Amino acid sequence: MKMVIAVVQDKDSNRLSQALVKENVRATKLASTGGFLKAGNTTFMIGIEDDRVEGVLSLIKENCQSRQQMMAPMSSMGGNADSYIPYPVEVQVGGATVFILPVDRFEQF
Amino acid sequence: MKMVIAVVQDKDSNRLSQALVKENVRATKLASTGGFLKAGNTTFMIGIEDDRVEGVLSLIKENCQSRQQMMAPMSSMGGNADSYIPYPVEVQVGGATVFILPVDRFEQF
Amino acid sequence: MKMVIAVVQDKDSNRLSQALVKENVRATKLASTGGFLKAGNTTFMIGIEDDRVEGVLSLIKENCQSRQQMMAPMSSMGGNADSYIPYPVEVQVGGATVFILPVDRFEQF
Ligand code: NI
Ligand code: NI
Ligand code: NI
Repeated sequence: MKMVIAVVQDKDSNRLSQALVKENVRATKLASTGGFLKAGNTTFMIGIEDDRVEGVLSLIKENCQSRQQMMAPMSSMGGNADSYIPYPVEVQVGGATVFILPVDRFEQF
Repeated sequence: MKMVIAVVQDKDSNRLSQALVKENVRATKLASTGGFLKAGNTTFMIGIEDDRVEGVLSLIKENCQSRQQMMAPMSSMGGNADSYIPYPVEVQVGGATVFILPVDRFEQF
Repeated sequence: MKMVIAVVQDKDSNRLSQALVKENVRATKLASTGGFLKAGNTTFMIGIEDDRVEGVLSLIKENCQSRQQMMAPMSSMGGNADSYIPYPVEVQVGGATVFILPVDRFEQF
């Protein structure tokens, strides 16, 4: 058994949760901040059999991979023309940082 | 040394905390959601010497084991007679999911 | 790679965060309670290469080490002269509990 610890952006958290449930993978979520990702994030703690680790990593990659996203022009705040961006910009969203730790033993009561 | 990570229902969290304190076992609690347990849960992180692991597992089992509980008849909400359950029902409460991880090194500053 | 898990007092949390950022060490913070430390605390989860573990431990020690601090005389609350402490007292603050766990594998998506 392994413990997969994945830090993902809040933006992708619900989507990953649903994908894990669909594949019958049980995850515990911890509220977390900072770390590799700029925005708010969620830490998934997943205990999983060794032969299912690759499958879990695929699910995380599919649902959380870092990607470019077009952001609509932002309207000026408070009428300050200097802060107005008149064209769409590409921003990087998503991304996951994943650690796989060995587990000595697993119990359920 | 081992790191015992136990996900328990909020319902049992205080009782487990008190049992651990009584046995002089120090635990850090993390707010968590989802996972093996349906209801809100708490993740206990317990650093413990190898020869005390069995004792800690016994405490978790004693205080958090999954069990049947009788639930009193629920009064109808808002007068909708359809949702009234006129007899006590048995529901499953509690339960703990426990991972034991190896620890390379422990420091206190 | 190692996973450094450090439980530190909230009081020292910001200072440690800044020290880690300055040294380009990425940390994820989890809200936590209880444990080795009396006051509110924060759990840092730091994935780090083996040869940088000592450096991270030094940063934690420098910024969170348990220490005596003089507390100014407290003014009496609500005029109760009995609760007034007319001289400065030394209290213990800070302290960190650190676990270093082995990591089998690390991925970034
Ligand atoms: Ni295994
Ligand atoms: Ni040991
Ligand atoms: Ni390594």
